[in-house]
Amino acid sequence: MEQDLTATLALLAATPDTLDALLRHLPEALIHSNEGPGTWTVTEVLAHLIHGERTDWLPLVEILLRAGESETFPIFQREGHLGDSRSVTELLTEFAELRAASIAQLHALGLTPQDLERRGRHPVFGLVTLSQLLATWPTHDLSHLHQISRILASQYREAVGPWSRYLGVLHCDGHSGKA
Amino acid sequence: MEQDLTATLALLAATPDTLDALLRHLPEALIHSNEGPGTWTVTEVLAHLIHGERTDWLPLVEILLRAGESETFPIFQREGHLGDSRSVTELLTEFAELRAASIAQLHALGLTPQDLERRGRHPVFGLVTLSQLLATWPTHDLSHLHQISRILASQYREAVGPWSRYLGVLHCDGHSGKA
Repeated sequence: MEQDLTATLALLAATPDTLDALLRHLPEALIHSNEGPGTWTVTEVLAHLIHGERTDWLPLVEILLRAGESETFPIFQREGHLGDSRSVTELLTEFAELRAASIAQLHALGLTPQDLERRGRHPVFGLVTLSQLLATWPTHDLSHLHQISRILASQYREAVGPWSRYLGVLHCDGHSGKA
Repeated sequence: MEQDLTATLALLAATPDTLDALLRHLPEALIHSNEGPGTWTVTEVLAHLIHGERTDWLPLVEILLRAGESETFPIFQREGHLGDSRSVTELLTEFAELRAASIAQLHALGLTPQDLERRGRHPVFGLVTLSQLLATWPTHDLSHLHQISRILASQYREAVGPWSRYLGVLHCDGHSGKA
């Protein structure tokens, strides 16, 4: 599938409600569990999504549209959210507000097919298109939904007993530390 | 974490709203895409969850509580849902109704810690506990949420360009065909 802005916007809009439905009413023990040393809890994933929404996605779109290839994107601070100690409820609420604002701003840009081919400069990849950047945004959401489902399932690793072998999520290795 | 019935019920209750928030407003093209030949679309996953809700989870609990080790569980028909051609909206609505009924029936059973240790007979694994069966139910939900996030993300595999390497969900192989 080529980048389809309608689908991309629908996916971006769905993420806050999806995470809210999944996480808001879970017991604290589940919310604060991780997959082992050096891995993230569900609340750390939410704080990372908030950090990205503030500093990464729309700010990069704006740099690309303003400066094109002449300005290299800043390097995203993947650990920039650590230390955010708010509750899951506070994090879900802030993420939903930020995402709604992002979508409104995206609509306001009135992007054309020609805009999607415009190029910016990534600090590692070099030239990238606006289409690639916009496609990466919901895919990054989905990568973290994939991670959250794995974090939660991993709390049941022992409890499921012999059924473990049938449950693919328990055999996911996190893909070399990627989300 | 040991099997915690409160957490298990919270996860079971969260799944229908989570899937509804994620899927109800997506374009048809996303809903009817899969990961390649022989893999499932999002609607096929929903139909599978409905089939499991009707024939697998609570029916197995009831066999175990009624007959204990003396009656072997029937073999779950993993392909039993294929041919269900309803829309995503119809499937989401039916799944939510069935799951709400399952949770009400689970509450009505008034299970005690002693009940959780009761044993039934699985056709492949042999003796299993009620605790293991109940723990497997939400973990199976999460395995399919993990799968759905992967199916949707895979539609952006080409569109994200060089960002692919940072997106773990695009490097998930489905864990040998398991959900």
